[in-house]
Amino acid sequence: MISVSVVGASGYSGIELLKILARHPGVTIDRLFANSSAGKLLADVAPVFGKTLDIMLEPYAPDKISGSDLVFIALPSGEAMNIVPDILAAGKRVIDLGGDFRLQDTSLYERFYKRPHTAHAVLKQSVYGLPEWNAAQIKTASLVANPGCYPTSAILPLAPLLKEGIIEPAGIAVSSLSGVSGAGRSAAVEMSFGEVNESVRAYKVGTHQHIPEIKTALNAIAQTTVKLSFVPHLLPITRGIFTSSYAALKKSVNEQMVLDVYKKYYGTAPFVRYSAAALPEIKNVAYTNFIDIGFRINQEDGQLVVLSTIDNLIKGAAGQAVQNMNLMVGFNETEGIK
Amino acid sequence: MISVSVVGASGYSGIELLKILARHPGVTIDRLFANSSAGKLLADVAPVFGKTLDIMLEPYAPDKISGSDLVFIALPSGEAMNIVPDILAAGKRVIDLGGDFRLQDTSLYERFYKRPHTAHAVLKQSVYGLPEWNAAQIKTASLVANPGCYPTSAILPLAPLLKEGIIEPAGIAVSSLSGVSGAGRSAAVEMSFGEVNESVRAYKVGTHQHIPEIKTALNAIAQTTVKLSFVPHLLPITRGIFTSSYAALKKSVNEQMVLDVYKKYYGTAPFVRYSAAALPEIKNVAYTNFIDIGFRINQEDGQLVVLSTIDNLIKGAAGQAVQNMNLMVGFNETEGIK
Amino acid sequence: MISVSVVGASGYSGIELLKILARHPGVTIDRLFANSSAGKLLADVAPVFGKTLDIMLEPYAPDKISGSDLVFIALPSGEAMNIVPDILAAGKRVIDLGGDFRLQDTSLYERFYKRPHTAHAVLKQSVYGLPEWNAAQIKTASLVANPGCYPTSAILPLAPLLKEGIIEPAGIAVSSLSGVSGAGRSAAVEMSFGEVNESVRAYKVGTHQHIPEIKTALNAIAQTTVKLSFVPHLLPITRGIFTSSYAALKKSVNEQMVLDVYKKYYGTAPFVRYSAAALPEIKNVAYTNFIDIGFRINQEDGQLVVLSTIDNLIKGAAGQAVQNMNLMVGFNETEGIK
Amino acid sequence: MISVSVVGASGYSGIELLKILARHPGVTIDRLFANSSAGKLLADVAPVFGKTLDIMLEPYAPDKISGSDLVFIALPSGEAMNIVPDILAAGKRVIDLGGDFRLQDTSLYERFYKRPHTAHAVLKQSVYGLPEWNAAQIKTASLVANPGCYPTSAILPLAPLLKEGIIEPAGIAVSSLSGVSGAGRSAAVEMSFGEVNESVRAYKVGTHQHIPEIKTALNAIAQTTVKLSFVPHLLPITRGIFTSSYAALKKSVNEQMVLDVYKKYYGTAPFVRYSAAALPEIKNVAYTNFIDIGFRINQEDGQLVVLSTIDNLIKGAAGQAVQNMNLMVGFNETEGIK
Repeated sequence: MISVSVVGASGYSGIELLKILARHPGVTIDRLFANSSAGKLLADVAPVFGKTLDIMLEPYAPDKISGSDLVFIALPSGEAMNIVPDILAAGKRVIDLGGDFRLQDTSLYERFYKRPHTAHAVLKQSVYGLPEWNAAQIKTASLVANPGCYPTSAILPLAPLLKEGIIEPAGIAVSSLSGVSGAGRSAAVEMSFGEVNESVRAYKVGTHQHIPEIKTALNAIAQTTVKLSFVPHLLPITRGIFTSSYAALKKSVNEQMVLDVYKKYYGTAPFVRYSAAALPEIKNVAYTNFIDIGFRINQEDGQLVVLSTIDNLIKGAAGQAVQNMNLMVGFNETEGIK
Repeated sequence: MISVSVVGASGYSGIELLKILARHPGVTIDRLFANSSAGKLLADVAPVFGKTLDIMLEPYAPDKISGSDLVFIALPSGEAMNIVPDILAAGKRVIDLGGDFRLQDTSLYERFYKRPHTAHAVLKQSVYGLPEWNAAQIKTASLVANPGCYPTSAILPLAPLLKEGIIEPAGIAVSSLSGVSGAGRSAAVEMSFGEVNESVRAYKVGTHQHIPEIKTALNAIAQTTVKLSFVPHLLPITRGIFTSSYAALKKSVNEQMVLDVYKKYYGTAPFVRYSAAALPEIKNVAYTNFIDIGFRINQEDGQLVVLSTIDNLIKGAAGQAVQNMNLMVGFNETEGIK
Repeated sequence: MISVSVVGASGYSGIELLKILARHPGVTIDRLFANSSAGKLLADVAPVFGKTLDIMLEPYAPDKISGSDLVFIALPSGEAMNIVPDILAAGKRVIDLGGDFRLQDTSLYERFYKRPHTAHAVLKQSVYGLPEWNAAQIKTASLVANPGCYPTSAILPLAPLLKEGIIEPAGIAVSSLSGVSGAGRSAAVEMSFGEVNESVRAYKVGTHQHIPEIKTALNAIAQTTVKLSFVPHLLPITRGIFTSSYAALKKSVNEQMVLDVYKKYYGTAPFVRYSAAALPEIKNVAYTNFIDIGFRINQEDGQLVVLSTIDNLIKGAAGQAVQNMNLMVGFNETEGIK
Repeated sequence: MISVSVVGASGYSGIELLKILARHPGVTIDRLFANSSAGKLLADVAPVFGKTLDIMLEPYAPDKISGSDLVFIALPSGEAMNIVPDILAAGKRVIDLGGDFRLQDTSLYERFYKRPHTAHAVLKQSVYGLPEWNAAQIKTASLVANPGCYPTSAILPLAPLLKEGIIEPAGIAVSSLSGVSGAGRSAAVEMSFGEVNESVRAYKVGTHQHIPEIKTALNAIAQTTVKLSFVPHLLPITRGIFTSSYAALKKSVNEQMVLDVYKKYYGTAPFVRYSAAALPEIKNVAYTNFIDIGFRINQEDGQLVVLSTIDNLIKGAAGQAVQNMNLMVGFNETEGIK
């Protein structure tokens, strides 16, 4: 039984995290921190918790987490680096759902997040929390940087293919479609129902902060230098990501060879489902911690198409965070999320 | 003033066509033909026409079009080739919104449409009805094959770039997102609201009948052999297509050079809007005959991303059909659709 | 040919109005006024107008409307009363799409709009712009108060039944469902896609400013005092209103008797469609100026249910405004909106 | 630990039931039965269960349930009465999620379900499974008729008000809005995305089979004869019901009096949340077994408006079924559903 607190409990990721933690048999929720909602009951901010989770939201302060074994940070990127050093110094373990500790190269951080990185020292301790590739380090980490939603959806299907030399590392196209919850709760006109509904738009083409995260992770896994274009699209759905990746075949392959590659790396991964027949759909992964992967070989044009789906709030955020917690604490990897 | 009839008037494309024709100042609607809805008033099948268009739907018969100058066919692919030869023989001009007369190579037709082509003779007379490229031939054509929705959204942004040698013809990725109306009115479970809503799925990856149409048109325009993968995705919206195309840069370019290419081919095209700044959104073209084109140059990875949006029922079907009619008859190209 | 200007051209109602005016054969658009968007091209604010309507948005000033015959006001309620007196004094006719001139009883205005009314003098000149009931006065009015969207959807189906003594004036329930565009373009969190999608909520129950408008209009038409509860619900759709009204039967009726009542008042109304068989659906009136009315008699429980649908931006706002303009100017009532 | 089987496991209600049963700590799933999907793996029919629930769907046969303590029936109404008598005769307890055993008055069943009732004998044993009112009988029942989704949403808010004489039993209006999953998985054109999206329609006005269920339950609880009109509306959302009920006040009341009435009957009910301040929203109950109730008193017009929301698949079907099972078996009422 471990005791956890959540900083940033009232955003979409925080709320999703609380839903999971509330039914996790190995967890007690210690304290919940929020900014603008501090001083309110959680159930007043998120009425779904009425009669379920009766906790007050508090302003965060370092001395309030003394009773916690582990602290989840679900703040907007840029805010975690202000508080994580002290939490670590207090001997607490941390899982950060934001982007502050995902990129070891701070010049990339500064270029894409458009702000200086102010916590270089603890950044070096950070482990990229992709359990299918980094489980060993996650288990002993004090600071886990939970991956971004788009990167999770893109790295998992592409990494084995690159590592095994199935596809060329250059000329990759990653086309990702996301529900609005990826952007967090927002008061912007362009996120209003009237502007989003019955439309699709691409955004941050070439400048999205997940681009260096995807490249860095793929380069590290495959020991190569990928060249890719990533286009995130905003869809009129609440949750879910559908990512279509296109790459040049490096050698002639058939379906079984691709399946074998996925089996080699994900054969025992509890949350990766892959198939040569079925294509993924968002509805099959919504409200779950699974990633579904499908593919089609285009022999005629020498290309491979890989399709993948996740729930951006679960496998792309809160679920993967709990998967990381399970590994860190020594619980069964699937506890509370299957 | 010309007199037109519509065969297949009660499907989504047929209804959209009637909305346009009803307010077109140069057109009188002669007769409307339908299969299962024959014998009913149009307004009983499509109540939106109540108090607006008071016409009976009839079963089609060759002698019924004697008073028409031009016949629109809005039938499922495979049905037009059974009736078009006779209509042409009767001296009527034809615009077919389906796929039967788009591919001159019947082996491609038979491979992708999975049926034999039974009207080779008239196929040879057919002109591919993409006004931005084939206006001269359309003006004198007796049979115009109105382009498919996905091809319209992909050919228009890519053709100038290929023709001018901006992008490589191999390794292209075309990721298209479509609303459900592209599939026509359907009773299939997988098209039901409960299955489509809050989800995304890809379908017919590598086998979609629009693949040879896109390749054939691009090859013809650019005098090359493109190699591409095309993935159509079904979105929970009613109308609109968003197409993201990714290609390797053949030479170093800047924004102005790309703009200049588009200006060269579409500078006077009334329904093409392009921009180096704004990215297209479906809502900006919904219910219009426009295609919006935007792009981003990824110098670092040597790629170009081109984004385009159309209303699949207008520029991707009924609106483009009227644009073709306007050219054939000698009306102003924008009459009734702007 | 008349010349018109629009104040508040960049909101949802203003944009819809411009779409109609742009294709109206009797209208030239003089000038467009906006607040926060002033100084921008209309097409930059609403890209749908690209290559269609090339006009600059200006800050409003009284001297700028000297070339206009008629001025449409599409401002939030409370702003029109600041400028309408001067426009009328300049001899221009005005159609106000907001709520400032709909209630002759300023105590009701002040109670429901929660602000003092500051233009009592011109309020007295104002005519309630419901063409099906007030056409004669509208024709000669200098100031027309265009009805609210909910009131249009509720008054038209109920008024004949009350006037003819079919239903009791007390105990009426009006349950209205609206798309988000009724609230205008909004940056509020509670109007964001993530909060509205896959949900329904009621709002302003008992306090909505359309309650006195509905009651006042019904009382005036039926010479009675209605007692009713009105509940507006926000739905995850962009446009359209569905109103279900429930009332006690005052006498025993059959379908034909109800049809006869509607025929008596709306038999020649160009935009009212009613039926004893078909029930209305939003999709049948979307993007049109029609109201569809259906009903069911519940003999067993002594009640009548009346259902009605409109497009809130057309018959509930911009379309009805043009219908009023047509009457005021002497055009055919349906010009530009059918 | 009890062993349960599900007949009709592959419909929307069956799938939702399996999600709950799979994580219920006191339940083992014995066998799953389906019609058209028999012979397939559950995960092939509902991929969401991949790597989670690995069970084959079988055709139902009486001898296959010998190892089950309790059988859930999630078949379309009309099918349960063919098999329930034999299951009861075999000594198994049954929870039927369909409508066959909800109405003790078979003439009402035959009028609204439009078929003869063929299991009168077991019908008499049936208990109406509304735990908030019938818990004592449910605990010992062999056959529980799980309430309909609309009735659950309407009976719970209205029953206390009628029983305590707050509202008049005549002249009630019940306006219900439902997501499409209430209609089950469907291949009908009118349930296709293109027809449902961006629209609303009412259906079965005055003829819906839930009308006698609502009236019967309210009459039994309040010992009166209610007179009401019920209009179900289909919304473009997947799950959830929003019900607005309007009634005449029988006496003058204030908020506290209404709250006291709800407290009297639901003060200890684990799944009923009520408030005088907050109004219910579907998103607050989605994916939960809660019903949220809110209200507004309209003193001026002598009416009370009561609003309520449920998830039609949980509190309106599968969740309430498990709540009933918990009571029947002696588990904590909230086990597996909170």
